[in-house]
Amino acid sequence: MTRGLYAGSFDPMTCGHEDMIVRAANLCDELVVGIIENPSKKPMFTADERKVMIEKVCSGIPNVKVDCFSGLLADYVNENGFSMVIRGLRSNTDFEYELSMAQINARLYRDNVETVFLMTDPHYSFISSSMAKEVFTLGGSIEGLVPDEILKTMKNKCR
Amino acid sequence: MTRGLYAGSFDPMTCGHEDMIVRAANLCDELVVGIIENPSKKPMFTADERKVMIEKVCSGIPNVKVDCFSGLLADYVNENGFSMVIRGLRSNTDFEYELSMAQINARLYRDNVETVFLMTDPHYSFISSSMAKEVFTLGGSIEGLVPDEILKTMKNKCR
Amino acid sequence: MTRGLYAGSFDPMTCGHEDMIVRAANLCDELVVGIIENPSKKPMFTADERKVMIEKVCSGIPNVKVDCFSGLLADYVNENGFSMVIRGLRSNTDFEYELSMAQINARLYRDNVETVFLMTDPHYSFISSSMAKEVFTLGGSIEGLVPDEILKTMKNKCR
Amino acid sequence: MTRGLYAGSFDPMTCGHEDMIVRAANLCDELVVGIIENPSKKPMFTADERKVMIEKVCSGIPNVKVDCFSGLLADYVNENGFSMVIRGLRSNTDFEYELSMAQINARLYRDNVETVFLMTDPHYSFISSSMAKEVFTLGGSIEGLVPDEILKTMKNKCR
Amino acid sequence: MTRGLYAGSFDPMTCGHEDMIVRAANLCDELVVGIIENPSKKPMFTADERKVMIEKVCSGIPNVKVDCFSGLLADYVNENGFSMVIRGLRSNTDFEYELSMAQINARLYRDNVETVFLMTDPHYSFISSSMAKEVFTLGGSIEGLVPDEILKTMKNKCR
Amino acid sequence: MTRGLYAGSFDPMTCGHEDMIVRAANLCDELVVGIIENPSKKPMFTADERKVMIEKVCSGIPNVKVDCFSGLLADYVNENGFSMVIRGLRSNTDFEYELSMAQINARLYRDNVETVFLMTDPHYSFISSSMAKEVFTLGGSIEGLVPDEILKTMKNKCR
Repeated sequence: MTRGLYAGSFDPMTCGHEDMIVRAANLCDELVVGIIENPSKKPMFTADERKVMIEKVCSGIPNVKVDCFSGLLADYVNENGFSMVIRGLRSNTDFEYELSMAQINARLYRDNVETVFLMTDPHYSFISSSMAKEVFTLGGSIEGLVPDEILKTMKNKCR
Repeated sequence: MTRGLYAGSFDPMTCGHEDMIVRAANLCDELVVGIIENPSKKPMFTADERKVMIEKVCSGIPNVKVDCFSGLLADYVNENGFSMVIRGLRSNTDFEYELSMAQINARLYRDNVETVFLMTDPHYSFISSSMAKEVFTLGGSIEGLVPDEILKTMKNKCR
Repeated sequence: MTRGLYAGSFDPMTCGHEDMIVRAANLCDELVVGIIENPSKKPMFTADERKVMIEKVCSGIPNVKVDCFSGLLADYVNENGFSMVIRGLRSNTDFEYELSMAQINARLYRDNVETVFLMTDPHYSFISSSMAKEVFTLGGSIEGLVPDEILKTMKNKCR
Repeated sequence: MTRGLYAGSFDPMTCGHEDMIVRAANLCDELVVGIIENPSKKPMFTADERKVMIEKVCSGIPNVKVDCFSGLLADYVNENGFSMVIRGLRSNTDFEYELSMAQINARLYRDNVETVFLMTDPHYSFISSSMAKEVFTLGGSIEGLVPDEILKTMKNKCR
Repeated sequence: MTRGLYAGSFDPMTCGHEDMIVRAANLCDELVVGIIENPSKKPMFTADERKVMIEKVCSGIPNVKVDCFSGLLADYVNENGFSMVIRGLRSNTDFEYELSMAQINARLYRDNVETVFLMTDPHYSFISSSMAKEVFTLGGSIEGLVPDEILKTMKNKCR
Repeated sequence: MTRGLYAGSFDPMTCGHEDMIVRAANLCDELVVGIIENPSKKPMFTADERKVMIEKVCSGIPNVKVDCFSGLLADYVNENGFSMVIRGLRSNTDFEYELSMAQINARLYRDNVETVFLMTDPHYSFISSSMAKEVFTLGGSIEGLVPDEILKTMKNKCR
């Protein structure tokens, strides 16, 4: 059985993330969406809130599970038997960062773990969680940039 | 009448900004230099000080006005009837950031607002406000990197 | 009166070109679509055929004219009183080439001619005339990559 | 059963290709190495010669088959039931080309075919078939750039 | 006598830095490894600790000296009679930053000081001090990413 | 004694080449400008004509010699005892190509030969021999893009 990991902060999940999850789920028997808890950052949503939100959005995809983890990505990968780590590529800047990360992780992963990249759909390539948060905070519309479920939760949070 | 916007922090204005304003002013009937007030950053000069400084430097260009604004760029653009937002491109890194911003803004602008890019003159492509500030703070010469008026004000500020 | 030029080979015109023409026409009083005749290349369509095809596609935009020229772009710009040359930017690779061309042309243009760039809509950023031709020649569908009028003419040409 | 395709000219196969095949074979149940026959290019080796050479190098990987095809990649993918097309990424320049190709192919592939990218191992990122051929032709050593089997065949060809 | 400078934070020194020092030492009669003390950053090691560590690693290269400095790089270069400033290039992102720095420094250096670039060995191109620190802090192995001497000191520091 | 090589086609030499030669000559005891003779290209000037032209332009730099060679660059470097190969970097596209070449050449050079890069002066970064030739052939002015001596020879050649 192929287990794949799609990891990120997802604070909040965007439509770009959703598209990536749908496509990544096709590449493996089980896909785990892994929410990274970074104690040095102040997120908009707690890891648990993000888990609930992503589970709602992905409820229609049978082979997707959502999990939270902290610490070294490579440790989480090795301890949970993943054979594929899936990443999205949006731009050249992404490419150089991802190339470095893939190379350093290749040293840390146990054998036969592969980092696999999908090109972000051009409809979503300009979206990032931080940009969505910034526009939302300044009162701009982010409809269509984040899934409807997520937008609803963001609006509730701010009331 | 075509109204164009050239927005930025201008903390401080550089010779690259000045060159861009001269050229952008040729592209529209009225050009507004829009100073973004970002409450989360600690600028060297207040927005009002920057306004006075830019007005002095641009006093010879009849169709240029200087203004300050805060909040979402797209709101400012929509509320003030701009049809052109002019941006300078210095490098590939600029390109990818600007492409993302142009795409997200295209969703937020009312119809027929266009983001228009000019290539920075190679004499100025290495200059940024932050680099000018850093060199100045460490005691290096920034003559020729910022307009003379600006340099004078920076020196006065530091005495 | 502002006269703008959007120049290219347009062999054939793509949906990306069409989008660029619509947007460029908003930036100037008159926009000329200038078809470059390059005697050292073997085009799919003659310059005259391309002129007829583009005129059909652009018939609904009142301030667009189509013209053919050969020789140095800068000569054509200077002799015809253009004040704006509009270019599309799709990628970093485009950026570096366009930066070089803009710099060399800035030396050749008379005063106050400005090269102005628009970012290609992400829906069209992967389309080029050569890629459309290659896919078409190998029997693949290019519906939605070139305007319907153009596709019809391409199919007629091949019968 | 997941069928993956790794396509290219392989004229000749390099150590970078070999590394990619080993890793790609881990991602799917069956991997086909697809040799593209391009009638407009003059290869060093015929497609059949390349097939024999690659089969020798890959004889130790049980789930790898080698095949030749011509025409549109998307047609070959659709007709042979591939669900994954695997590509190597070496550089930013690769990235932009591959992004365009992935986007145009996404329109041509039947549903649920995904283009999947692996980062080239930095030991091999500077190797290309054309560079290997050029160095070899000028009499330079390409040991370690192409598999030993391939080098032997190249030397035999040249005698 | 040619005096070269290789400057950086070296917090901590990596195997990439070590390789660069060995190669840079070949280009000049005397190479100074200049440790930048930046009062606004909180380093893992004090400048003096870094000096001792680098001196140990470089003890086998006769024409290398290690020094600390603060303030403007250009002042340090001018006051100490360097004729060459050596920099490593790992990626496109490095390139654009280094191009800007080289251009601004060219204005600040006295005559005949040249910034000279070496391409990082691909084995080390993914390593940075900050990435090494992050992996180490999260408990991952960085053996082979930093010299053995450095790793020993890092482990002692953490006990 | 340090011997450096600055190699290229120089068909024709540009002001960018001239600037690079002046700066490269400062880095070594003797600098050889090596003209590559490529039998598969049809140059504007023969290698001998280019040698005469470059010698005229560089007559004021005492430690510069001009030479012609064909075949593998690495063979020429190894056989002539160069310890430094100097290259100019103009752009990201240059960077990726040069990185590949430096890596493949590092395998072919004897020990202690280093490829050293200088950033092109931004005044010249848009100039290439091929662009200069194209503009010249179409009747445009290339004054200031190639040295005066070269321009004179180009004009004589065309009469």
